[in-house]
Amino acid sequence: MTRDALVSAIFQKKTFLCVGLDTEVSKIPAHLHGFDDPVFEFNRRIIDATRDLCVAYKPNLAFYEALGPGGWVTLEKTVQYIGNEHFTIADAKRGDIGNTSRMYAEAFFQKMNFDAVTIAPYMGADSVKPFLGFAGKWAILLALTSNNGSNDFQRLELHSPEASSNFELWEQVLSTAQTWGTPDELMFVVGATHPESFARVREIAPQSFLLVPGVGAQGGDLAAICQHGLTPDCGLLINASRSILYAAAGEDFAEKARAEAAKMQAQMAEILEMSPVRRS
Amino acid sequence: MTRDALVSAIFQKKTFLCVGLDTEVSKIPAHLHGFDDPVFEFNRRIIDATRDLCVAYKPNLAFYEALGPGGWVTLEKTVQYIGNEHFTIADAKRGDIGNTSRMYAEAFFQKMNFDAVTIAPYMGADSVKPFLGFAGKWAILLALTSNNGSNDFQRLELHSPEASSNFELWEQVLSTAQTWGTPDELMFVVGATHPESFARVREIAPQSFLLVPGVGAQGGDLAAICQHGLTPDCGLLINASRSILYAAAGEDFAEKARAEAAKMQAQMAEILEMSPVRRS
Repeated sequence: MTRDALVSAIFQKKTFLCVGLDTEVSKIPAHLHGFDDPVFEFNRRIIDATRDLCVAYKPNLAFYEALGPGGWVTLEKTVQYIGNEHFTIADAKRGDIGNTSRMYAEAFFQKMNFDAVTIAPYMGADSVKPFLGFAGKWAILLALTSNNGSNDFQRLELHSPEASSNFELWEQVLSTAQTWGTPDELMFVVGATHPESFARVREIAPQSFLLVPGVGAQGGDLAAICQHGLTPDCGLLINASRSILYAAAGEDFAEKARAEAAKMQAQMAEILEMSPVRRS
Repeated sequence: MTRDALVSAIFQKKTFLCVGLDTEVSKIPAHLHGFDDPVFEFNRRIIDATRDLCVAYKPNLAFYEALGPGGWVTLEKTVQYIGNEHFTIADAKRGDIGNTSRMYAEAFFQKMNFDAVTIAPYMGADSVKPFLGFAGKWAILLALTSNNGSNDFQRLELHSPEASSNFELWEQVLSTAQTWGTPDELMFVVGATHPESFARVREIAPQSFLLVPGVGAQGGDLAAICQHGLTPDCGLLINASRSILYAAAGEDFAEKARAEAAKMQAQMAEILEMSPVRRS
């Protein structure tokens, strides 16, 4: 999906919600366990309940890998069921030496037809560039993640000859990676648990789309993120996984998931409407 | 596999070679393409040809994921075929927020019975710790990788209040991670393309096993690494993938692979024999 198509979908549907499909077998309501593929049945109902309220879906690959080869069949069925009207993100956090990253890119973009893959930056340029240059496909690079561990390395201050500048590692990642690809093929992960950092993100990457996890179960605040994160193109995909998927555990789980997604969509519609920078 | 069992295997077989199973369909000799599962047939012959010459096998997951769900079946068959006498490493370079890393750990350690998984450090403690604490299982954390991109972030110098110390990011990773786990459950990846760094590695992590890629196709030198990298327990697993797997492209590929592995094993036997620090 191109940037234009994504931005159009956002303003047409008045939402920049991404629903994270982190489906755990142990959390699937009991009445679905009789199906051949309970995870797919759960996903199908969540997708049907939220299609009009979101622009993106993000299956987290760990949850499918944990099921063995069958999990990959479930993942492929899920991506096919989502179809081409939504932006699909393989939350895989891959990244390896060049010939290997190229294999991952082919697996996710060509074999499975995802629009985007999340990538870890630690191995540098030649681990990220193989994901770029596929028409309408995206690399989404981890910059500042939502977890506590983001403080261990991402926030380390780098040495600089000028005493006045104090770049942290995540800022360097954001800055360096923009020399590798354009804002039409490269997004960044910035966690909602760091609302104070979004102004800084926009200084370094004014045009890039950001994938923002950490709203919902992890406690991030939507309005605070949008205050500095929003661009004329919106520039944000806000992910919620557990707060939507597991809003209820009974037979009404899909209705309750829809209600939770609708609450977020309503907030987003209001934010897009009121934003002084919004695209006409 | 415990550390004791690994060290015993190394000194008994006089080798610390790890064979990387980065099997590409396009590089499999023509006479194997008629089999139902050419990748497994290739792996089986490579394993049969090298069992006595190596202590570990390391399938790179990208090459199996690229094949879709069937690739995971091939991977499972391969790990089963290797059996329990060798140390098995899922070269996956995973790492995610806590609940997700826990799913990956279960997938690789319990579902697939690998001994070890490679992990990217960028997301910090809570992305790594879920891989620790499984008896006889290992996390292998990227520290200083073998590719050119290792210079982009891993070698960035960190700010320090003391002007005399100049820690690079990879050194901080090595140092910090040792507070998370013991040398009985945590190894580090240090690329053979940085031979000048092994003395420094041993200052920071004197007891840890190192998984060393980059010998072979990538050009690293075995003797130079061992000079500073070797410990009384050996402390090294030297990986070679392409130089062994693709030593020849014809019907004699397995023989040629064996010859290539045998050359490395002979060098290793000599190094273990001559080392002044070797375990009696």
